[in-house]
Amino acid sequence: MPETGMNYAESCRAFTEDLIAHQVLISQGAKGLYGFGAAMELVIAAIERIITAAGVREKPEVMRFPPLISRRNLERSDYLRSFPNLAGSVHSFGGGMDDHTKLLQHLDRNEDWSRGLEATGVVLAPAACFAVYPVLTGTLPATGRLVDVVSFVFRNEPSDDPTRLQVFRLREFVLAGDARACRIHSQRWAERGMDLLRSLGLPVEAQAASDPFFGRTGRMLAANQRDQELKIELLVPICSEEQLTACASCNYHQDHFGRAFDIHTAAGDPAHSACVGFGLERIALALFRHHGFRTGSWPESVRRQLEL
Amino acid sequence: MPETGMNYAESCRAFTEDLIAHQVLISQGAKGLYGFGAAMELVIAAIERIITAAGVREKPEVMRFPPLISRRNLERSDYLRSFPNLAGSVHSFGGGMDDHTKLLQHLDRNEDWSRGLEATGVVLAPAACFAVYPVLTGTLPATGRLVDVVSFVFRNEPSDDPTRLQVFRLREFVLAGDARACRIHSQRWAERGMDLLRSLGLPVEAQAASDPFFGRTGRMLAANQRDQELKIELLVPICSEEQLTACASCNYHQDHFGRAFDIHTAAGDPAHSACVGFGLERIALALFRHHGFRTGSWPESVRRQLEL
Repeated sequence: MPETGMNYAESCRAFTEDLIAHQVLISQGAKGLYGFGAAMELVIAAIERIITAAGVREKPEVMRFPPLISRRNLERSDYLRSFPNLAGSVHSFGGGMDDHTKLLQHLDRNEDWSRGLEATGVVLAPAACFAVYPVLTGTLPATGRLVDVVSFVFRNEPSDDPTRLQVFRLREFVLAGDARACRIHSQRWAERGMDLLRSLGLPVEAQAASDPFFGRTGRMLAANQRDQELKIELLVPICSEEQLTACASCNYHQDHFGRAFDIHTAAGDPAHSACVGFGLERIALALFRHHGFRTGSWPESVRRQLEL
Repeated sequence: MPETGMNYAESCRAFTEDLIAHQVLISQGAKGLYGFGAAMELVIAAIERIITAAGVREKPEVMRFPPLISRRNLERSDYLRSFPNLAGSVHSFGGGMDDHTKLLQHLDRNEDWSRGLEATGVVLAPAACFAVYPVLTGTLPATGRLVDVVSFVFRNEPSDDPTRLQVFRLREFVLAGDARACRIHSQRWAERGMDLLRSLGLPVEAQAASDPFFGRTGRMLAANQRDQELKIELLVPICSEEQLTACASCNYHQDHFGRAFDIHTAAGDPAHSACVGFGLERIALALFRHHGFRTGSWPESVRRQLEL
């Protein structure tokens, strides 16, 4: 259980120390960047199995993606308009021998050696579904397309909160189709997600939420998103009983990605889309928090549910 | 089987088209960047199982890492000295509203919007073992430490060769210990790797090799590496019968990483290290090349070996 009598920062620090001491997380020398021990990986594989089971009836197409997407696809997505501060751009060295000598001089003097690097054709994936939309470009079948996807994703937000990683695994079911089907997809997965997390012995509540849009216009976008209930988060207490952590979110994008990636319904309209995203590390950390650091001591019902 | 009568580039193009047509690979709009279909993922999971089985007797510590490492750890590793052109540095936007307006202006004009970005504290992992060495800092037990590790890794080498991905999964067994144990580790895994690949019906040959060190001094380092047989590659014909593809490599690093990351033997000397690395996508692509695009039609012995 989350500890009481500590503020959020203290609670995060204490939980992180425990996770490292029990080899659930492995320190990597940067905020929000951790390796994962054997128990953590077994739990994440188990969570993936029950998510698969929850979605298998609708026979999604299975796609898996590496942690990078093309720069062009990030640009098309409008992510840089709304979340420039969270994006990760991959740069590399394209110079000759003299440039290399300079780079090494900077390195040896503990100076920034990255100034002379050039942008490559790839960027870090901000969410697993960003790799899916370009694949769906074109005309959808009448029932739309449903994709089961997972990838490591990146958010530039170094934090001492062990549930706020810079790079983590997002498992998503993405639907592209008409507006009604997408609304239903989002709502249905909100219910399924609640059931799934409850079945793991986690206290969970659903709440209309908004993304952390950048800047002044961002505040309007966020208010609009909340008013229209476009985003529902499934929240679990992890680091604190007061400040809950989103372990999954259900998102209805209207026709944003349909327009950006030229995805059309059979009727010729820009497709709507919706996705549910499960934060695999967060769900696993919630389990370690609520049931203890040794999976062998977890409640029998949870162990059975996870086939541990 | 690799096709004959085509040059390497033609053969690569034809194989890539086939892989995409059979939904083994999913085009992502950048060279060397692909998603993976359901069959590809099942095959990779199966390859992971037999690699686990090949290494389980020695009871390695299991660590899993995300695709990023800390910038500081890349700097300590000396990777930028030897392979600056292959490294990937993660940059992000740290500006205010006005800077954002400028970024969007560049974006809207199809200009490079990445100039104003700042280096973050993280970089892409060049190999899975780079995350391991900092964890081993300190004094090793008398028998050393053996780690079973996997992560997505990045190489900035966009290519039309489907076996030369920019981002791919590397499964490694890393030993840090004394010189003798490391030499044995490397040689033993060369034999095991040959057996493993042969058991999958793949023609394989071992060869002393070198890493693609940068520049003039790099050529000397490469020659030295080859002369001392510090690197052994396990090669399989994939895109061509003549130009083989390394599906695994066994590397003895002498005390390079021991010195860089302050890892010491029980006797107080800088530790030596060695690793075997299996390129999971390459092995899977070799199987699709040699046994066909439908796993259901693969030879019974291979299907049994992979538990498909």
